[in-house]
Amino acid sequence: MDNPTTSLSKPLRCIVKLGGAAITCKNELEKINEEDLKAVSIHLSQAMMSGEVVDMDWSKRQGRLDVSVNVDDIANQSMLDSSNFIVVHGAGSFGHFQASKSGVHKGGIDQPLVKAGFVATHISVKLLNLEIVRALAREGIPSIGISPFSCGWTTFQRNVASADITAVATTIDSGFVPVLHGDTVLDQSQGCTILSGDVIIRHLAESLKPEYVTDVFGVYDRPPSEPDAVLLKEIAVDEEGSWRVVNPAPKTMNEQVEITVAAHDTTGGMVTKISEAAAIAKLGIDVYIVKAATDHSLKALKGDMKGKIPNDWLGTAIRFMR
Amino acid sequence: MDNPTTSLSKPLRCIVKLGGAAITCKNELEKINEEDLKAVSIHLSQAMMSGEVVDMDWSKRQGRLDVSVNVDDIANQSMLDSSNFIVVHGAGSFGHFQASKSGVHKGGIDQPLVKAGFVATHISVKLLNLEIVRALAREGIPSIGISPFSCGWTTFQRNVASADITAVATTIDSGFVPVLHGDTVLDQSQGCTILSGDVIIRHLAESLKPEYVTDVFGVYDRPPSEPDAVLLKEIAVDEEGSWRVVNPAPKTMNEQVEITVAAHDTTGGMVTKISEAAAIAKLGIDVYIVKAATDHSLKALKGDMKGKIPNDWLGTAIRFMR
Repeated sequence: MDNPTTSLSKPLRCIVKLGGAAITCKNELEKINEEDLKAVSIHLSQAMMSGEVVDMDWSKRQGRLDVSVNVDDIANQSMLDSSNFIVVHGAGSFGHFQASKSGVHKGGIDQPLVKAGFVATHISVKLLNLEIVRALAREGIPSIGISPFSCGWTTFQRNVASADITAVATTIDSGFVPVLHGDTVLDQSQGCTILSGDVIIRHLAESLKPEYVTDVFGVYDRPPSEPDAVLLKEIAVDEEGSWRVVNPAPKTMNEQVEITVAAHDTTGGMVTKISEAAAIAKLGIDVYIVKAATDHSLKALKGDMKGKIPNDWLGTAIRFMR
Repeated sequence: MDNPTTSLSKPLRCIVKLGGAAITCKNELEKINEEDLKAVSIHLSQAMMSGEVVDMDWSKRQGRLDVSVNVDDIANQSMLDSSNFIVVHGAGSFGHFQASKSGVHKGGIDQPLVKAGFVATHISVKLLNLEIVRALAREGIPSIGISPFSCGWTTFQRNVASADITAVATTIDSGFVPVLHGDTVLDQSQGCTILSGDVIIRHLAESLKPEYVTDVFGVYDRPPSEPDAVLLKEIAVDEEGSWRVVNPAPKTMNEQVEITVAAHDTTGGMVTKISEAAAIAKLGIDVYIVKAATDHSLKALKGDMKGKIPNDWLGTAIRFMR
């Protein structure tokens, strides 16, 4: 499908991917990683908001009897300005159980099991979305959850076939931060499927041309500090979308090691992640892959990597280079 | 705005209004009336589904350790066919606190308090929506929550200015039941406001022409069984939208009593409710106002009132009559 650039009244600064593994406990059904989600939310707030933090989640919370909102305090704040961000998150331990039990990703929406699984999966990912929206709102981010299914995102052979970007654009132009999620959607070839956060991000990047994309990644099987791990710090992408590692410099780089690092990462695979990122970098948009809740991710969220990458920064930058 | 009739592949049978007071505990913040919500969900399931009930909420529940889904059982079900329904619900004890604290209904989205309140209110009504979707899914209704804000519903002077019915129509045509809610929306005159469930229903009725509308009402201040209450069983609406009570017959009807009944009802007012219903009845669409979780509401949901109204039915039918 065509992706005409939708215009925003103010350019889009960043699309943030929150990996499912970064914010949920992957081995426990529908369990948020509260600590990391809070840390990521604080970083996001620091990266996009100016001024004091105003709690925007006024709903009941577990373990608290009352909802206290200091109306006068909030009314006396200066403007709650945020720079233009979009957050897209994966499912982690939400949705996967329901999807794999029903095979909703394989289509066949007329089958009772798939139909029930479609409903169950959609419920589960929306539960996560609402929790993430609330966590962000508590740190002062004016976040609004947006479900791709409701906005008419559909796929054809699992690629985006239609997507209404208007809702996202309107939300941003009104001063809010849209929070989208991987979702169950209708597929024009097989009836239904799962639309992944990565596909959503690529589509949004093509349409809304952010300055950069930050992929807040979850668990590495092997931390970059371990002796046999090699951190790919900088990857160059050319016009055709093929990529090569430029830092560490190729001469010191043992290709075998690179593949080992990729294979050790079970959460989707570093190679897949880089390929996805390369498709975005090809558009001239930097992508930074960083570990959640670290100083390095805060820097990447702020866009501090746009020039030369500091030696002490731990993360992977994927950029277009002629 | 124009309301061209959107076509569905199969006609819409019924739009159901679930009043906030029918499904929440009105005096306790963000508290679901579990018992009544369950009863209403069972009635809805009986009215719209054929075949066995398949639990479609596979998410964790309070007080349960495990999620058990009998995949084989579901796979062996016959088709999960539902007749075409839309559910729209009010806010009850969700959203009201956040809206009234911030004045989001009065507009001024650039003010910090209103902006924060917009986010907080949207979160609260979505919490309720998700709970209702889950309750319906547990009774086998393939329900999908749809947030009007996300679908680009906006208002002008609190009337609907734009609304994307496509998402609702696609959801129905794919065999699901859309569940919409009163929501925070952008208003072209004052910045933002609250779009009520009643306004949503009127707009959907104009666009999608259901066979009938059932308003599942919450608490009456005075039950129809009390000696000084008069139940308005049938109300006729003419081309101009003005209405008159036809049953009880006008000769036995003391107008003073009618007004007394209306005044006793504090939840929005019976007169307001009838006026809203009259706007729909004017289109030739019957509206039934019934008390939640009663046999009478089940009959109304099933559309059993379409002919002559049985003597033992307790509810109010509002219909077009020349």
